[in-house]
Amino acid sequence: MTWKDSLPMETLAKERENPPFDLDAMKIANHGSQERLEFKRRVMLELERNKAFYNDDFYDLTKDELRVRTFIKIGSIVNWLLTENLDVFRQRLEVISVADPGFWTRFGVHLGLFTNCVRSGSTSGQFAYWVNQGMLACKEFYGCFGMTELAHGSNVQGIETTATFDENTDEFIIHTPNLGATKWWIGGAAHSATHCAVFARLIVHGKDYGTKTFVVQLRNLDTYETLPGVTIGDIGKKMGRDGIDNGYIQFTYVRVPRAHMLMRHCQVTRDGQVTEPPMQQLAYGALLTGRVMMAVDSSNIGKKAITIAGRYAAVRRQFKSDPNSKYETQLLDYPIHQRRLMPLLAQAIAFQYCGQQLTHMLEQTTSALDALEPGDPKLQDVIELLKSTHASSSGLKAFCTWGTLSAIEVCRQSLGGHGYSSYTGLAPLYNDFAVHCTWEGDNTILALQLGRALMSAYEESRQGKKQGEALAYLNDIEATLRARCSSEQELNSLAGIEAGWLTASAHFVKVAYDEFQRLIKTGNSREAAAEKCSQLRFVAASVHTTGFIFRQFRAAVEELPEKSDGVKATLTKVALLYGLWQMEEKAGFLLRSGWLKPEQCDFLTVRVSELCAEVRSFAIPLIDSFEYSDFVINSPFGRYDGNVYREYFDMIRRNNPPLKPHPYFETLVKPLISRKTREVDNVGELMNLDEEIEEIQAETSEALKAAKKA
Amino acid sequence: MTWKDSLPMETLAKERENPPFDLDAMKIANHGSQERLEFKRRVMLELERNKAFYNDDFYDLTKDELRVRTFIKIGSIVNWLLTENLDVFRQRLEVISVADPGFWTRFGVHLGLFTNCVRSGSTSGQFAYWVNQGMLACKEFYGCFGMTELAHGSNVQGIETTATFDENTDEFIIHTPNLGATKWWIGGAAHSATHCAVFARLIVHGKDYGTKTFVVQLRNLDTYETLPGVTIGDIGKKMGRDGIDNGYIQFTYVRVPRAHMLMRHCQVTRDGQVTEPPMQQLAYGALLTGRVMMAVDSSNIGKKAITIAGRYAAVRRQFKSDPNSKYETQLLDYPIHQRRLMPLLAQAIAFQYCGQQLTHMLEQTTSALDALEPGDPKLQDVIELLKSTHASSSGLKAFCTWGTLSAIEVCRQSLGGHGYSSYTGLAPLYNDFAVHCTWEGDNTILALQLGRALMSAYEESRQGKKQGEALAYLNDIEATLRARCSSEQELNSLAGIEAGWLTASAHFVKVAYDEFQRLIKTGNSREAAAEKCSQLRFVAASVHTTGFIFRQFRAAVEELPEKSDGVKATLTKVALLYGLWQMEEKAGFLLRSGWLKPEQCDFLTVRVSELCAEVRSFAIPLIDSFEYSDFVINSPFGRYDGNVYREYFDMIRRNNPPLKPHPYFETLVKPLISRKTREVDNVGELMNLDEEIEEIQAETSEALKAAKKA
Repeated sequence: MTWKDSLPMETLAKERENPPFDLDAMKIANHGSQERLEFKRRVMLELERNKAFYNDDFYDLTKDELRVRTFIKIGSIVNWLLTENLDVFRQRLEVISVADPGFWTRFGVHLGLFTNCVRSGSTSGQFAYWVNQGMLACKEFYGCFGMTELAHGSNVQGIETTATFDENTDEFIIHTPNLGATKWWIGGAAHSATHCAVFARLIVHGKDYGTKTFVVQLRNLDTYETLPGVTIGDIGKKMGRDGIDNGYIQFTYVRVPRAHMLMRHCQVTRDGQVTEPPMQQLAYGALLTGRVMMAVDSSNIGKKAITIAGRYAAVRRQFKSDPNSKYETQLLDYPIHQRRLMPLLAQAIAFQYCGQQLTHMLEQTTSALDALEPGDPKLQDVIELLKSTHASSSGLKAFCTWGTLSAIEVCRQSLGGHGYSSYTGLAPLYNDFAVHCTWEGDNTILALQLGRALMSAYEESRQGKKQGEALAYLNDIEATLRARCSSEQELNSLAGIEAGWLTASAHFVKVAYDEFQRLIKTGNSREAAAEKCSQLRFVAASVHTTGFIFRQFRAAVEELPEKSDGVKATLTKVALLYGLWQMEEKAGFLLRSGWLKPEQCDFLTVRVSELCAEVRSFAIPLIDSFEYSDFVINSPFGRYDGNVYREYFDMIRRNNPPLKPHPYFETLVKPLISRKTREVDNVGELMNLDEEIEEIQAETSEALKAAKKA
Repeated sequence: MTWKDSLPMETLAKERENPPFDLDAMKIANHGSQERLEFKRRVMLELERNKAFYNDDFYDLTKDELRVRTFIKIGSIVNWLLTENLDVFRQRLEVISVADPGFWTRFGVHLGLFTNCVRSGSTSGQFAYWVNQGMLACKEFYGCFGMTELAHGSNVQGIETTATFDENTDEFIIHTPNLGATKWWIGGAAHSATHCAVFARLIVHGKDYGTKTFVVQLRNLDTYETLPGVTIGDIGKKMGRDGIDNGYIQFTYVRVPRAHMLMRHCQVTRDGQVTEPPMQQLAYGALLTGRVMMAVDSSNIGKKAITIAGRYAAVRRQFKSDPNSKYETQLLDYPIHQRRLMPLLAQAIAFQYCGQQLTHMLEQTTSALDALEPGDPKLQDVIELLKSTHASSSGLKAFCTWGTLSAIEVCRQSLGGHGYSSYTGLAPLYNDFAVHCTWEGDNTILALQLGRALMSAYEESRQGKKQGEALAYLNDIEATLRARCSSEQELNSLAGIEAGWLTASAHFVKVAYDEFQRLIKTGNSREAAAEKCSQLRFVAASVHTTGFIFRQFRAAVEELPEKSDGVKATLTKVALLYGLWQMEEKAGFLLRSGWLKPEQCDFLTVRVSELCAEVRSFAIPLIDSFEYSDFVINSPFGRYDGNVYREYFDMIRRNNPPLKPHPYFETLVKPLISRKTREVDNVGELMNLDEEIEEIQAETSEALKAAKKA
């Protein structure tokens, strides 16, 4: 007897007995504050009760249905947008992003990309104008972000749409010169946007000043017909986030007033004088936000995935590892299953602290940028800060989104066959999340940019320039490179793990730089040398970022107050698991750096397994501390009460009602199956079954006798 | 000027000039024979011209539409099924599997799983009966395979559906005793199947004889209404392969004649005497086929993915690495892009040779099983062969499907933003392929089974029993363990790489076994010890399989005739890249085994980059040699002629016609956007633009002066 209807729920309840930490305290630690936790609960409740966010049929919606639903949500969210402080509203969106990533993006293109772009790029008068036009309130206004082109993605400087100044009329002529210059992937273009922030090459008096931004109206506000010269198309089906109406846009000599160019950083006067910004990068500060949000999202979505996979692993039983036990064994009790999931639980928490740290860096940078007056003597400092935030956010965006994408897939596969059902929530989650790896800076390109920044910093530090916190290991690099793991005790400590990553980071930054120099000395241009050592740059970025993430986690854990609530002790263990697991995963790098010796790896493997078993013992309450409601998780497998099978079955019946008639029996099945009728009713005779059985049995028993003798 | 309509096509044509091998000879090498190549071409042409296989709108079909289309294909394929030799027909299906994985599976459940199951499990009389009932011809017959249950997947022995013998009526009563025992994931159940091969516990006179197979009719053939006692439901939306009508089945005391139990291996007589097979495994030989087909599919689908990513990488240009060049740089010329794709090209070819070898092993095993008479003295040999094929196919199924799934994702991401469009073909391909990792034996479980087999073989070899070819490295294990990489020259050779993997394999099999023994000695049961060392078993299986794949590749390449056609020289280079890349990826294992030294890894990295550049030089003709037609690839990005942008744009317009009216402007958009109207026509005034510009410029120029002085 292995089946009992109530067993899954009883099993999960039992997992919650006696956690080694105070659950409320852990929840607060994971949310930053009691206030944020309570606000999150409120948002989850509001969403669950809001008919616009009804999601029981979410996984069965077609692309077209999803788009309609998503627009209904936009109509609803605007109520909060108009009444809520922007910071609070952003927290609200962060919660919604976990429930419906597609909605988050569709609305985020307007609120995040478009309005941020206008805010950071416009003069104060321009900003006031666009606000007055309805930009913030979505009144007679919905923005989209026209950067990417069909033939140009990451390379913003290479885009080909032109904005040619016509001095006669004081206008710009926006034009798509060829197919490759078609604006592509533009979220909101197909069905929502009234206006677009168009990235185009500024051409004045025949001179090309590079890429600037222009606000262009796309549609008649009363009919939503495109304006003359504007061609818009739907780009259709995507891997995920089908709630977004991505489209393409072609401009055919479309005229906009000169005032529609965003002129905070670069200005064009009435007579066509162009003043360019002291530093091009200042114009792209707005793009940072997206990267930081993706690092934060990597943690949130990682938590969602592990909530589903972790709870199910506690409930699911398969095989009996102990023949005397009454029930089959919980998956979570198998060491191999602990190995699959516990590191991902640790990773989601590691990313959480990284996201917090990165958000903090972004806020600092944004304030500094906003406070910057033209000609400010702090300009150089701000540029340094911007560069550093850019480098860190590039690396974290790349490696956190990759880390979480893999984690979702591992979680999905850990459900066995059921992981292939959409109703688990994990398959759609993978499809929704995957886009993070390529948009707003392809991960590989971003990692290489970080790699380049690391090489520059190394060069600077060799010339005596002291590096900031993130790169402090370069300041005394000789000692860092020489460091070796002294003992298993050191390896088994947060300080030891940090030391290991520092040595490995220093090693691979140096290896990349040395190769870069060698290439230059053997006749390559700097650019060619940088390309040729790109694999080494990539490795340096990867090792550096792994160490960086661990350091944020360690620092945050060590800052926690010493209390008897068990929070610090628990998270210290989780940090240890994360650090050692990453070391085991990337052992090759630590071995190559010399910090670790091959024979020490066996200890690593044993210790990771032990820590997985320890974390497993409190995995369910730790997952509970992430505090995502059943509504947000929207997966029978991740339900709080553990009633997995019944709810999975019921959800499938609700969404695929058994009374629906066969959709193509008469038209397709019958013509095939009943190509002709015939009557056969001679089962026994045709089979000649009993004689055959006798024969087989006689032969078998003889053979068995013969085998026993031999 | 970077855009030219014809540039993509010219670029791709140029890539085909002067390959270092004879293209026709390479095609034959990759297809086994001229005959197979020509048959494949014929099948591709037939499919392309067959309206049932029309696929221009494939990526926009909803689940329900896909299912209808898929059934139309079944109706069409039956024409070939009835007229073609089964071996030839299987080759046909292999080609179709690359064009439409969902169709392949839906039809494969009937033809592969159901009929194979009946063939291998029934007596000759039973087989004749079911053939006569229309099984092979799909006449008044369509089979499905009722193994998996809601609460039991991989654990076939744990399933709970019962088949209780009623001696009074000479029938079995098939019954689903609880929700968890609901047959689940059954492909074809929802809308296609008339009959099901039900796996159920045989209960005779109150005794449970374990899981056997019973053929149960599900539906009335004239109406497709379910028969009394049979409950069928649709399990709805999946990650991919939505063309398959997976369903659930519950039986409520359904009676079938005794003759409907498959009785080749286990027999029940009229009076309820049960004879069990000498070895349970013999009953599951049929499941091997699926695993072997998945290894083969891993190569085919890997080739499809690299065809798309490789051709696009040649055509796509981004940034100018050389400022003097006329056009931007082809992605394929960036070393980092070569690093991303060239190893995957090599991997697809490595898997091809593995698939061929495994198919050969399967054929041998199947013949031996089929030839086996009850009580055959060769029984023990056949069981050994079966075990060995089972172990190899388990490992290859797991690691080849994982390898290709990652490869698809890397290829998808290598398209940058466009990789997220369904029309690239790669996102749907990922979703279709992903199921291979969890069905017919979850990959992790299969890897652990191989790990267990490796430990047993090691134990046997210590006791003096000589191991077969796949495990010959255990026969002189001391020497294998002591081997070290002597030089870069050795490392840079196929023989050297093979030696490295043998040492690493031996090392990790020994490590796993030693830990297993230590656990037993410290008081664990064998079962508990095996669970506790599961991570080490997993690692042993992974390292062993990597080496196994490489050895198949090397052996196949070395068997190629020495000719002037360049095929052998080219494939030797590709094998070298595959071997060294895998070494670099898994350097930690080679370092831990002692075979490789940390300082040798730098050479590895340099050499892999060099080989990537070499393979890149003939990547496009090598991809051409895979010979998949544009119809089968069905991606503008993978087109033979390279006309990517035009075709991508046109495909999107065909599938999202621009003349479609806005689907929800009146109902949703207008009410939001036009919440109230208002008139603003004071752009210039409100912005106060020109005064602001003057002010900014004055400040900026002062600041710049100040900055210059400082």
